[in-house]
Amino acid sequence: MKSQVIGYYSTPFGELWNKSLFDLTTEAVMGVLKNSDLEKNQIDAVFFGNMLGGILENNLHAGAKIADLLDISMPIFRVEGACASGGMAFHLAHSYITSGKGKTVLVVGAEKMTDVNTDQIIQGLMSAASGEEQECGLTFPGLYALMAREYLRKYSYTREHLASVSVKNHTHAALNPLAQFKNQITIENVLTSSSVADPLGVLDCSPVSDGASAVVITSDSNLMKKHKGITILATEIATDSISLLRRDSLTEIRATQEAASKAFSTAHIAPQDISIAEVHDCFSIAELLAMEDLGFWKKGEAGKQALQFESQREKGMLTVNTSGGLKAAGHPVGATGVKQIGEVYLQLTHQAGARQIKCDNTTFGLTHNVGGSGGTAVVSLFGV
Amino acid sequence: MKSQVIGYYSTPFGELWNKSLFDLTTEAVMGVLKNSDLEKNQIDAVFFGNMLGGILENNLHAGAKIADLLDISMPIFRVEGACASGGMAFHLAHSYITSGKGKTVLVVGAEKMTDVNTDQIIQGLMSAASGEEQECGLTFPGLYALMAREYLRKYSYTREHLASVSVKNHTHAALNPLAQFKNQITIENVLTSSSVADPLGVLDCSPVSDGASAVVITSDSNLMKKHKGITILATEIATDSISLLRRDSLTEIRATQEAASKAFSTAHIAPQDISIAEVHDCFSIAELLAMEDLGFWKKGEAGKQALQFESQREKGMLTVNTSGGLKAAGHPVGATGVKQIGEVYLQLTHQAGARQIKCDNTTFGLTHNVGGSGGTAVVSLFGV
Repeated sequence: MKSQVIGYYSTPFGELWNKSLFDLTTEAVMGVLKNSDLEKNQIDAVFFGNMLGGILENNLHAGAKIADLLDISMPIFRVEGACASGGMAFHLAHSYITSGKGKTVLVVGAEKMTDVNTDQIIQGLMSAASGEEQECGLTFPGLYALMAREYLRKYSYTREHLASVSVKNHTHAALNPLAQFKNQITIENVLTSSSVADPLGVLDCSPVSDGASAVVITSDSNLMKKHKGITILATEIATDSISLLRRDSLTEIRATQEAASKAFSTAHIAPQDISIAEVHDCFSIAELLAMEDLGFWKKGEAGKQALQFESQREKGMLTVNTSGGLKAAGHPVGATGVKQIGEVYLQLTHQAGARQIKCDNTTFGLTHNVGGSGGTAVVSLFGV
Repeated sequence: MKSQVIGYYSTPFGELWNKSLFDLTTEAVMGVLKNSDLEKNQIDAVFFGNMLGGILENNLHAGAKIADLLDISMPIFRVEGACASGGMAFHLAHSYITSGKGKTVLVVGAEKMTDVNTDQIIQGLMSAASGEEQECGLTFPGLYALMAREYLRKYSYTREHLASVSVKNHTHAALNPLAQFKNQITIENVLTSSSVADPLGVLDCSPVSDGASAVVITSDSNLMKKHKGITILATEIATDSISLLRRDSLTEIRATQEAASKAFSTAHIAPQDISIAEVHDCFSIAELLAMEDLGFWKKGEAGKQALQFESQREKGMLTVNTSGGLKAAGHPVGATGVKQIGEVYLQLTHQAGARQIKCDNTTFGLTHNVGGSGGTAVVSLFGV
């Protein structure tokens, strides 16, 4: 059954001190309804991606709370898969439509991270890691630093190769009015930034952010005719061992490889057909691994390609993270997977403003959302 | 698309001091695979209902953690809708199968509640209530006590009418080897039990419990032929205002009414066709309201019918909570909605042992799972 993304809205991402989780969610829901010219009673269900509402805000049962905000009774599902919560909510929303349970479904991702102290955020985020990783005092920067060290060692790369990812994504974010960081940075800035977990400096890491993003998916042919939309060609999800120590390789995310392989097979297209991708760059190393695991660049070559800024706008055939990625657009974890889809929607429908890349009727887009250190990956493919 | 529940396993419910959340989950998953004669690679996806893992155990991203336990890569979705998490996971699993994304899907509900102190449990559970209800110091016994007071006042009932629900459910639980409380109690016991929130005594309240339950759903015709299964006729979900103060009535749960009405309409059957129901008796008053909202008994009559033990086994045409209900079988919140479906499966397939009720090919079953004080309700209908 054909279904399309026909509307998108996102709040700005950043330290939004005067907005609560539900302020952000309401803004995103009302915004996407307005942008899609829909009344709330035209929505059959809502899928809500949120990771930390329970731990950081004592806020569970968010589905019913959103129903309350909207003053409407409808099925609302909270889905949680750590930082992949948004992509997972989208995946389930798509299957809900395919099942015929609903024709027009809203996917909202939201996270409020800045109302608590840093220790609480670190502990909350680490709840996505395995017990053994939590107990030995690892953090997510630490886990990704282990992957980064092995990647640099294995392919004789340096911190410059990692840094180039952040530089590119800040360059892109400078054109995104909703991005948390709109400043351009240099490789030198990244190399001299405070060390978080060697070899990762603070400018190799995505920030702590507040924000909410929403898309509308529909299988209703009238709505599809009425709106410029993008067609959902595939959405696939896969899992891997949650602990790094049980994986065969520290330089591959098997969940990404599997989800991508299934998605390309379902959509009957190949990595080289993709012109725009939003990939999960929670740390600079994550984007390098993703570019290889998604099949865009050969194993071991991502460092080299990144340092040549091959995936920067107006460079190669494929532009990656035009939104600024998690690094520079910000990473309100539940919102990220939905924002990625929204960015591809804006680009493929020529609504991306100053950051618009060249798209035509044969352009394909990809989104890649990861939970934890790669325990979960969701890959979705889109065309016009 | 026809789909059936073809297997069930549940751990005992209770204070299981030597079992963790993932011990319980593993036991349920392995148990249901064994009971259904399935290998894990025959499962296409897992839906995991869990409410409090994040808050009480710093355990999010449970999907990937379950994949790790199973040592298999597959889509695993954690779904959270407070005490309706299990029913909601089942609902989404059913739509996943209907969409064709998977043929055979496992639904697991689990909760570990006893490893923390009472304050943490109360605070965790209250995360399902509205901010205003949390801030004014209400608890769930308090919220349901408000409903109970209004129900007793409106229809001139007494605490005996409430108490009869607990007495019946303990009578049923005495026949369920997995129940947390297998002791029979009297109305006098309930009336003289410690007051929790007037008019509710401790014996009007479901307990704090650990446990996990799992069912297998399939649309695979070979598997359906091979197993005694029950057919899923409908599964519907609805929401209501989360705060009691915004509702038109304190003696009706609109979400239950809507979900039931849609489910009966989808299945083309009526409340009087149901012979066995598992309803959400988190407090004695909840079962009385549910019996009216589900259409089994007329408005205002549930107190009278309950005191006549009309829904006790071997009494009327309809037996309610043969498992012992939440009250006596126990209420590990994420597991409850799945256990309810498992109980109907056992009864309709004549595997309920000592508590088997009379069933034939025309017997229909219902399950009713509620989140919070009625913000979410899931109603599912089954036949053979």
